[in-house]
Amino acid sequence: MKGEHTGYKQIDTQKIRGFCENLFCAYGFSRDESATITDVLLRADLYGIESHGVQRLVRYHDEITSGQVDISAKTEIAHESQISACIDANKKMGQLTGVEAMNLAIKKAKTSGCAMVTVRNSNHYGIAGYYTNMAAARDLIGVCMTNTEAICVPTFGAQAMTGTNAIALAMPASPFTFSYDASTTVVPRGTLEVFRKNETPLPDNWALDANGKPCNDAGVVVNNIIAKAGGGIAPLGGLGTQHGGHKGYGLGIIVDLFTAVVSGGLTSNHVNRKPGHTGICHYFAAIDYGIFGDKTEIKNNMSKFLQELRDSKKAEDQTRIYTHGEKEAEMMAARINGTIPVNEKTLEEMKVIAGKLGVGFI
Amino acid sequence: MKGEHTGYKQIDTQKIRGFCENLFCAYGFSRDESATITDVLLRADLYGIESHGVQRLVRYHDEITSGQVDISAKTEIAHESQISACIDANKKMGQLTGVEAMNLAIKKAKTSGCAMVTVRNSNHYGIAGYYTNMAAARDLIGVCMTNTEAICVPTFGAQAMTGTNAIALAMPASPFTFSYDASTTVVPRGTLEVFRKNETPLPDNWALDANGKPCNDAGVVVNNIIAKAGGGIAPLGGLGTQHGGHKGYGLGIIVDLFTAVVSGGLTSNHVNRKPGHTGICHYFAAIDYGIFGDKTEIKNNMSKFLQELRDSKKAEDQTRIYTHGEKEAEMMAARINGTIPVNEKTLEEMKVIAGKLGVGFI
Repeated sequence: MKGEHTGYKQIDTQKIRGFCENLFCAYGFSRDESATITDVLLRADLYGIESHGVQRLVRYHDEITSGQVDISAKTEIAHESQISACIDANKKMGQLTGVEAMNLAIKKAKTSGCAMVTVRNSNHYGIAGYYTNMAAARDLIGVCMTNTEAICVPTFGAQAMTGTNAIALAMPASPFTFSYDASTTVVPRGTLEVFRKNETPLPDNWALDANGKPCNDAGVVVNNIIAKAGGGIAPLGGLGTQHGGHKGYGLGIIVDLFTAVVSGGLTSNHVNRKPGHTGICHYFAAIDYGIFGDKTEIKNNMSKFLQELRDSKKAEDQTRIYTHGEKEAEMMAARINGTIPVNEKTLEEMKVIAGKLGVGFI
Repeated sequence: MKGEHTGYKQIDTQKIRGFCENLFCAYGFSRDESATITDVLLRADLYGIESHGVQRLVRYHDEITSGQVDISAKTEIAHESQISACIDANKKMGQLTGVEAMNLAIKKAKTSGCAMVTVRNSNHYGIAGYYTNMAAARDLIGVCMTNTEAICVPTFGAQAMTGTNAIALAMPASPFTFSYDASTTVVPRGTLEVFRKNETPLPDNWALDANGKPCNDAGVVVNNIIAKAGGGIAPLGGLGTQHGGHKGYGLGIIVDLFTAVVSGGLTSNHVNRKPGHTGICHYFAAIDYGIFGDKTEIKNNMSKFLQELRDSKKAEDQTRIYTHGEKEAEMMAARINGTIPVNEKTLEEMKVIAGKLGVGFI
């Protein structure tokens, strides 16, 4: 960590929550809507996923005030069956659309056993894991994907064409839910934003400059992504094919298939190319795993398998093997009634926004 | 490539097909069954996926003659709904089980819009992409996964716990189907077998020895995997977390969830641990993408997106960007009525098996 702004301050979780809710109310969202948006946003910080938490308030501020997000938008169902729906979000706030769409998938899955909802013309919706955990809380498997503006360069390419294109899946298990939530790139753009904020060089093989050459400067890469100037982030598996970069590239295409292609929305390479319109697309699925057999047995099978993974032999310099969702569950338990560490630069940004909107700061 | 057995011979495709069919008949499979097994096996060679083609005949020979595969087995449906089934394969040949399970998923999806079939107690079934392309040929999205014996070491671990755990997805598009089929490891075991056969050292960061240290000797790693002696292959994203190895590890868990956990079968870490029983599990899904909207429009959206990817800016030293299934479609067109290159060592192995079974060699 280098630079002058490397400190973190511990801020009371309830105070941040209250501040964020007031902020979203000040934009014109209802109190209920503001509570929902805040709950999604803060969940990232509670899980320890700083990149998707309050450090994104600046970005949401820009999107809301520029009209990319329409605060009075209402979603429309463009196509529907017993096991599916295609929703046009009409530029609604991503978090509100996401909660609505996953609730629809859950409702249909409770009747039909499985349901899939695809969404077009939405906006950034925070962490995908929030929505999959809505399904898991109802004893269903939850699946969620979203495309984003293009950040990821195809194998053998020099131009970002696919997005962060995260895939998330949650499955109930004991003592905690299996909760996978990961970009199909080496890292998401949000992680580069944190590196830029901390003035820390990027590890090798993460990113490419505008000419398609390896690049360790997070600021350069993020600016090129925003300017659509070329280059970007490597797919999961890295550059070329030797370590499987073509696999991450393909997973990114699959996310665009289920989000943008089937919904008739914008694929990642067209997202954020029109003023005032991001056009981001999502996908939500809920599966009642009772369609395969006895639910208690199946949940027990999952819990046993995850425990076997955690109990398996460790590498010499390691003391613990994690399963997905474990760190987040522990972090949330520690932070929910306590404090969240917030980067001082982020706090400054939050203060500036508060001033602009006339909302009292923390 | 080093060593004395590095040559490839071009063999007439129809002759290999006839030989393989005769071979499977000699084990006791019916002519129809032998044609199905051969079609799956040869498809790998036609696609250019040598690791999963006729070079695996030795392995299938061992599995069939040791009783791991029961040539007279019949599958049973353990659980069923309009949109799902759980099949017990009762040790049936994986290719026969796979074709039967995907046909059931296709039939249910044609009525219900989407269907998922999970399978327990099966055997190796060849390339997952064969089954997804069965669905695509019926104008559906096909999804397929399988677990295998444990080959992949969890992040921070030193013991293989998850399998090759491939994920495959096919979606109709023009001029050719999008067909993704990839392990959730850096490479599958079959690739290590090819490196061993060619006596070529493994690239760095692909594999670990029995003590969890990096290892470049394919023979050592494959032998340790077979002996369950520790170590194995890195998950997609590599060792540790910096390049996303925890993502590949999590995708591997997801494959075990949909194959073994929901079917009540063996998770990868228990596969192949009992004599005469592999216990491999699969998952097959078919989705009628008309549940989201107009099928012609959706297919056109996919074709357009894939073309945009192929047309995007190339890296300086590259002339072509591929989409998944493109190389395989080209390779198959060239080989189906021509010849397939077969490693001389593989030819020798095939000849030995032919001798044992009294089947005339090519």
